[in-house]
Amino acid sequence: MRFLLVLLLAAAAVVGNASAESVLRAVTDVPAAVSSGAADADALFCDSWMLSVETGNAGPWRQVPARCGTFVRAYMEGERYASDSAVAAAESLAFAGQAFALGEGGSKPAWVFDVDETLLSNAPYYAISGWGLVEFDETSFDAWVDVAKAPALPSSLKLYNELQGLGFHIILLTGRSESQRNATEQNLLFAGYHSWEKLILRQPSDIGKTAVQYKSERRAAMEVEGFKILGNSGDQWSDLIGLPVSTRSFKLPNPMYYIS
Amino acid sequence: MRFLLVLLLAAAAVVGNASAESVLRAVTDVPAAVSSGAADADALFCDSWMLSVETGNAGPWRQVPARCGTFVRAYMEGERYASDSAVAAAESLAFAGQAFALGEGGSKPAWVFDVDETLLSNAPYYAISGWGLVEFDETSFDAWVDVAKAPALPSSLKLYNELQGLGFHIILLTGRSESQRNATEQNLLFAGYHSWEKLILRQPSDIGKTAVQYKSERRAAMEVEGFKILGNSGDQWSDLIGLPVSTRSFKLPNPMYYIS
Repeated sequence: MRFLLVLLLAAAAVVGNASAESVLRAVTDVPAAVSSGAADADALFCDSWMLSVETGNAGPWRQVPARCGTFVRAYMEGERYASDSAVAAAESLAFAGQAFALGEGGSKPAWVFDVDETLLSNAPYYAISGWGLVEFDETSFDAWVDVAKAPALPSSLKLYNELQGLGFHIILLTGRSESQRNATEQNLLFAGYHSWEKLILRQPSDIGKTAVQYKSERRAAMEVEGFKILGNSGDQWSDLIGLPVSTRSFKLPNPMYYIS
Repeated sequence: MRFLLVLLLAAAAVVGNASAESVLRAVTDVPAAVSSGAADADALFCDSWMLSVETGNAGPWRQVPARCGTFVRAYMEGERYASDSAVAAAESLAFAGQAFALGEGGSKPAWVFDVDETLLSNAPYYAISGWGLVEFDETSFDAWVDVAKAPALPSSLKLYNELQGLGFHIILLTGRSESQRNATEQNLLFAGYHSWEKLILRQPSDIGKTAVQYKSERRAAMEVEGFKILGNSGDQWSDLIGLPVSTRSFKLPNPMYYIS
């Protein structure tokens, strides 16, 4: 403690000295590479852009910036996507176990999962349609949905099974439409998911609603039914925000597209 | 379009084939490195852990995981921290300009800034006190605050000036206590900030409140005073969540500490 205060006084003396400015600049300045045209600048910017998507800072966007296409692809194909997903799942389980042990879920503890890029990975589709570099094409995506062969995100499947083991009621809440129920159920089973409490899809009356509005309304309905939503996993902030929110929300990575 | 559908059918055929599993695994599986003891595993885990802090997935935490100490330090001292901060500021300004042009702020458009790790960088303090590897020590931090020589985060200072140029009312809302008002004002001026509308610090009656409660109450009071809070910048989710929220919130990076 005394040692730290001595260091602080020394640091203060240094900061008060003009010659220390380079030290501070190294810590806090905008790096030259960000504004230069080098490949390094693209890597640095695109890492920061992907972070800004994950934190929600980026706000609404329609397609991946052109300079970031190769980085998004490398992220999705490399170890980072799997690692980021696995850490999110591990943190979800740590919270779930603790909340469940404390009886915070009451008699009907529930966990809400989104489907696309949360339980199921559409990476095989995006691998052949530009990894988010082109705008979303509903026709071809719907054709892919009908194929019903999207694989599970492995860390989500593991979490799903662990939550069921704890006794959670699992509710799937997706922006897919009711007309895609059969294909979606078939795909979920193909990917290894089973025994969900309910699968909620957009009804005709939900058309035109934002995901935030539609999903919030359904979470409110779950509460009326007596479910206590302890956790909510989704790759879009629109899966997670809007009232009522779950006790804890878990944002899964997705640098490929944005849904409001 | 037709080409894409042909590719989709081809992809579906591949997915239906057991030999394609390795392709899908490469896209979606948990990498072996995550669970191994290699240095690469630490790098991968710590990048994912830092992301989980930024998205809020990590929840409450008291100190940086021991294996991540060197990575947090490298992040703070390297180009990523500055780049991530700069991109957050650029996205803030893009939104601010648009919202202001649309007159969404009414007669009293406001932007709320947190102070520590948002306007001011305490990197010189954390550089000599473990970069978050040790638990927060209030006594030594308060001594550092009294020194009043924390530098500005350059991208925040730039944003601050740009928002003032647009005509925003700038409100500073910090968890620092009223007893630190003089040192805080002195430090803000030292760092280059000026002409804020008001600087709100914790009053004796706020002691014991979480940051979420204290800051939400103050945002509610701002609305009563007629301010329209278009933007809110903070390095903690507790700066940003809780009702009322601003129109858009911007999460600045901070892998060093957590405030609830």
